[in-house]
Amino acid sequence: MNSRSSISAEDIADIAWGGAFLATGGGGDVTVGRMITREVLRRHGDVTMVPLEAIDDDATVVAVGAVGSPTLMQEKVSNGEEAVWALEALEAHIGRQADALIAFEVGGDNSLVPLQVAARRKLPVVDADGMGRAFPELQMETFSIYGVSATPLSIAGDLKDIAIIETRDSFIAERLVRHFAVIAGGGSCYSAEHVMDGRTAKRVSVPGTISLCRALGQLVSRHRGDLEGFVLALGAPLEAAGYGVAKVLMRGKVVDVSRRVEGGYDVGRMLVQGFAEDPRTMSIDFKNEFLVARIGDQVLATVPDLICFVDNDTAQPITAETVRYGLRVAVMAIGAPEILRTPRALQVVAPRCFGFDLDYVPLEKPKDCS
Amino acid sequence: MNSRSSISAEDIADIAWGGAFLATGGGGDVTVGRMITREVLRRHGDVTMVPLEAIDDDATVVAVGAVGSPTLMQEKVSNGEEAVWALEALEAHIGRQADALIAFEVGGDNSLVPLQVAARRKLPVVDADGMGRAFPELQMETFSIYGVSATPLSIAGDLKDIAIIETRDSFIAERLVRHFAVIAGGGSCYSAEHVMDGRTAKRVSVPGTISLCRALGQLVSRHRGDLEGFVLALGAPLEAAGYGVAKVLMRGKVVDVSRRVEGGYDVGRMLVQGFAEDPRTMSIDFKNEFLVARIGDQVLATVPDLICFVDNDTAQPITAETVRYGLRVAVMAIGAPEILRTPRALQVVAPRCFGFDLDYVPLEKPKDCS
Repeated sequence: MNSRSSISAEDIADIAWGGAFLATGGGGDVTVGRMITREVLRRHGDVTMVPLEAIDDDATVVAVGAVGSPTLMQEKVSNGEEAVWALEALEAHIGRQADALIAFEVGGDNSLVPLQVAARRKLPVVDADGMGRAFPELQMETFSIYGVSATPLSIAGDLKDIAIIETRDSFIAERLVRHFAVIAGGGSCYSAEHVMDGRTAKRVSVPGTISLCRALGQLVSRHRGDLEGFVLALGAPLEAAGYGVAKVLMRGKVVDVSRRVEGGYDVGRMLVQGFAEDPRTMSIDFKNEFLVARIGDQVLATVPDLICFVDNDTAQPITAETVRYGLRVAVMAIGAPEILRTPRALQVVAPRCFGFDLDYVPLEKPKDCS
Repeated sequence: MNSRSSISAEDIADIAWGGAFLATGGGGDVTVGRMITREVLRRHGDVTMVPLEAIDDDATVVAVGAVGSPTLMQEKVSNGEEAVWALEALEAHIGRQADALIAFEVGGDNSLVPLQVAARRKLPVVDADGMGRAFPELQMETFSIYGVSATPLSIAGDLKDIAIIETRDSFIAERLVRHFAVIAGGGSCYSAEHVMDGRTAKRVSVPGTISLCRALGQLVSRHRGDLEGFVLALGAPLEAAGYGVAKVLMRGKVVDVSRRVEGGYDVGRMLVQGFAEDPRTMSIDFKNEFLVARIGDQVLATVPDLICFVDNDTAQPITAETVRYGLRVAVMAIGAPEILRTPRALQVVAPRCFGFDLDYVPLEKPKDCS
């Protein structure tokens, strides 16, 4: 495990698809990020990926990624420069250069953004991220949860509007970043944040998740059209990476999608009706990411456990902004890594943090079936 | 005129009252800014005020002041540090120190903020500002109108949240600043912005306005309880400073105030009913500042000309956030300085820029009396 590896343009599709699966509906669109990143790596060369435990203790590690409404980001595509602008503005502000980049979340796009910037800046990326999935708000990064200040943080929009912020906490930072995305970025922007040394990164990051994205993406590609095979194959790499149980909650058809862009997030609810053998209706609430899956009063899964959609026919991961009426899906749930289940983490990522009047019950425990 | 003068704690009340008059309802509250600034000058000493034309061509001039909803600022008072934090963050960002400070608008508070910071930093202030009055948005500063970039700009809230922004234009900067005030400042924050050299400052500033505030404030104090005397005395200093005609539009009682905080601004309409000899009702629309005065369809005065409220009995200036039902007022109008009446300025400060379907007709011209 403790060895560097190389990420080439040929790895990008797998990392994107695996990221899209792990991102529980969020994390950005697979298509555009994949095309841009593949092109950048072809032009600028491969990127060195360093295991979390191999990062130099004194290295300056910076998280980079895209922030915004996935719905709007589908329409207003990145120009490919914003994340570099954000990093450079942050470096100028703190007066030193990044030694390594890290993803703040995984996703169809956000697993790739650090790779793009790393290729252009000849920097390594860390094989880890700050969520082990995607969440809608930056205080939900394990970096923040375990004590790293999100700021100084810089944000850049597609017309090179830039802000550098220093805030008392990550909650305020999140709101400022989100409004910047709305005001200056047409709904999205790129940030560079959570500057930390390598010693700290080892303590506060979710290890191995970029490799995991790649492994999951390889499964997506290997099991195209074979949902059962895909589901069976998932367990081993997830378990090896410290995730909990993986299970299919329901297979059925999307019968309703209520989605709106609110305050810079995609917010809404989807209804999935089971196929004939199980014709119940499941509701899935989301805020960029899928948050709570219920059938009637029965809660089947909640944040921080992962709720993932895959296409029932192709077994390809589906992001929330692309879900539409009539889509045939399998709704899956995966136990979150322990780092997201501690009392400290649950203060920030439990269902109540998203406005649900629900306690978090780990996916592995029997649910209340009232 | 071309000589430095000294501003002491004893001058502060006059500058505040004169600023409150010129600020056409906005510019910040007279009471708190006055108390803080007087105390700062007592502790840190007098401030040197330099005429605009005497500023060194190569001096670095920075505008500082408070931004936000005057209604909220009445409730959430400055801690007296924010403007210094904003200036220091900007100086660190641009890598050089300010040589002189300038007000971006005049007002009960905003004429004083540069004096506070100047006293603490042992810097001179320029006898000038960037509006010759107050406006609600930063792109309306003459600095922006005549080509100085508002950014790099820094903003600081009362809990030391700080942002430094670089934007493509002042309109985007205004929106970011305003949201920062709402999110991180409880409705207000302090900014340092429009960095320029002395040569540029001479071209883009409204000269002599801090002296004018002081002179008007002296008249307020001299004519307390004597509205006629105050109005008669106003003409000379205003004319000397390049303003147009000054006249009383109506004397009457405030019979309605509709005011809400919207997007970080105070927005609404007031109705003033004339005393018995002139029982018509005047409406005054405002957005932080008074914008349009009308009786029925007859437009009596609009931005950029100044609409000012003074107490009918005491002749003291009244800011919009303190206007309440039953107040007996004189509504005055004053022709704006020429720098606000050019075609270039009117692209940014004419009534249409505030959403009114009205052309600007200078106060001195006969109005349509349909």
